[in-house]
Amino acid sequence: MSQLFDRVALIGLGLIGSSLCHIMHREGLAGHIAGFARSAATRARAMELGLVESIHETAAAAVGDADLVILCSPVGTYGEVAREIGPALKPGAILTDVGSVKAAVVRDVGPHVPKGVHFIPGHPVAGTEQSGPESGFAELFGNRWCILTPLPDADPAAVSRLEGFWRACGSNVETMTPEHHDLVLAITSHLPHLIAYNIVATAADLEEVTGSEVIKYSAGGFRDFTRIAASDPTMWRDVFLNNREAVLEMLGRFSEDLSALQRAIRWGDGEALHLLFARAREIRRGIIAAGQDTASPDFGRDKTHKG
Amino acid sequence: MSQLFDRVALIGLGLIGSSLCHIMHREGLAGHIAGFARSAATRARAMELGLVESIHETAAAAVGDADLVILCSPVGTYGEVAREIGPALKPGAILTDVGSVKAAVVRDVGPHVPKGVHFIPGHPVAGTEQSGPESGFAELFGNRWCILTPLPDADPAAVSRLEGFWRACGSNVETMTPEHHDLVLAITSHLPHLIAYNIVATAADLEEVTGSEVIKYSAGGFRDFTRIAASDPTMWRDVFLNNREAVLEMLGRFSEDLSALQRAIRWGDGEALHLLFARAREIRRGIIAAGQDTASPDFGRDKTHKG
Repeated sequence: MSQLFDRVALIGLGLIGSSLCHIMHREGLAGHIAGFARSAATRARAMELGLVESIHETAAAAVGDADLVILCSPVGTYGEVAREIGPALKPGAILTDVGSVKAAVVRDVGPHVPKGVHFIPGHPVAGTEQSGPESGFAELFGNRWCILTPLPDADPAAVSRLEGFWRACGSNVETMTPEHHDLVLAITSHLPHLIAYNIVATAADLEEVTGSEVIKYSAGGFRDFTRIAASDPTMWRDVFLNNREAVLEMLGRFSEDLSALQRAIRWGDGEALHLLFARAREIRRGIIAAGQDTASPDFGRDKTHKG
Repeated sequence: MSQLFDRVALIGLGLIGSSLCHIMHREGLAGHIAGFARSAATRARAMELGLVESIHETAAAAVGDADLVILCSPVGTYGEVAREIGPALKPGAILTDVGSVKAAVVRDVGPHVPKGVHFIPGHPVAGTEQSGPESGFAELFGNRWCILTPLPDADPAAVSRLEGFWRACGSNVETMTPEHHDLVLAITSHLPHLIAYNIVATAADLEEVTGSEVIKYSAGGFRDFTRIAASDPTMWRDVFLNNREAVLEMLGRFSEDLSALQRAIRWGDGEALHLLFARAREIRRGIIAAGQDTASPDFGRDKTHKG
């Protein structure tokens, strides 16, 4: 047992919220976990699953007396949630979140945070394509990076305490500005999801190739995109609405590069294609070396070849 | 033991060729496997690994007396290989291939096939991001689809014999025209690879985000694209050079769809985004129901969560 907080409140009990419950229980990080979820079904399920010690009908009730409050609902809900819980936050408490965008969170949540409460936005870069209170597991954050984006006037002791919490969850922790976070994630996460959603839509709209053909022959690469595109639609809608500038910037660059690639194909420029394709392997090696993916040949997906 | 062919010759011993060796040995499908690879190192490794019963210095020597010849090298090599082996093919033999494009194979190989040899192009839709003689495994073709594109004058008995071979390797078999194959694969395989290569290139060229940041935070989605983009560059160069029209057609549609999506983001049209994102989940469900992917949450990639 290495209890870091007497009482932790989670607003939202989907994949990230429920995973936090599992790891906090396993490591004994919280004396008491109080939970809130907007849907009554999720609230009931969270109690059945033993995710939380107490479940509450309102977000304000959940955060009462909590030392650490973590927003785990889609980022589009944060402004309203913050307005509601602001007056109920305990002086000295840490308020953080797990949203995939950060500048918008500072904009939406910041104004509702009372003096004496430490607001430190955060983002654990981890997830699966599944969602809901049953999808969580304790290992989700292990060896993944959690990015904190403290404001210039943040209390170093509070930031350090929150860093300790994420490290106890198994994560590595990095600190940067909200703006830089949004740019980095636009390329490493938001654009990949956008592209995946887009190609699935393109495939669905073809006349010459049937839907059943797309499904049957998906092992050629397409199925990997559908996996990414199976992520929670509400969460992702909110990400794109709240990181518009950085996503449009990355999308512009992507489209320029794609035009060049298109021309290389049209002109039959095999050398340019090979050069570009070979380069991609280097970055892949870097990701495996950094422990952010496994080297096992997942395309096969045969259970005898899983790590 | 259910031997289907006395002697099988494989031209090329990479991922697909070596996987064929493993499954043929396991199921006892061939009396003798003769192999050829262009590189001396691969030839030596194939013997060390026991992939083949005999290894040959030339493709023509490997196919002598073979009842089934399978071209397993990059499709860009097929024309030259066919010209070389044509005169050495045994009357009554079946000549097939595993290339990811089919119309170009008919164009390049067809003219070199002597009368009395059954030329039946094929494509097992299976693979991993790895390559080389050590990357093969017997289960690669299990429950995957193998597409055959026999020409109009093909001998039904020979086609049926080749179908039986692929079924014995664990595959399902479908027959279609080379042109339709190339269109189907353009969307289910070629475009996904192109997009993956492209986004990796875009990420590599950014000034505001460092390469080490791209790697550290790749678990947000990007790493999945790098996995696809780690596939063999030579094989993929040849695919794009040899399926130009269909790939450009699909790429055009993809870009149109992406422009619409871009506009939805720019305008803050949350409804349009949510609608599109939610639709993708249906196709994903279809793929899992068809056994072409697993439902386990692979994004976590934790070994305790592998199926």
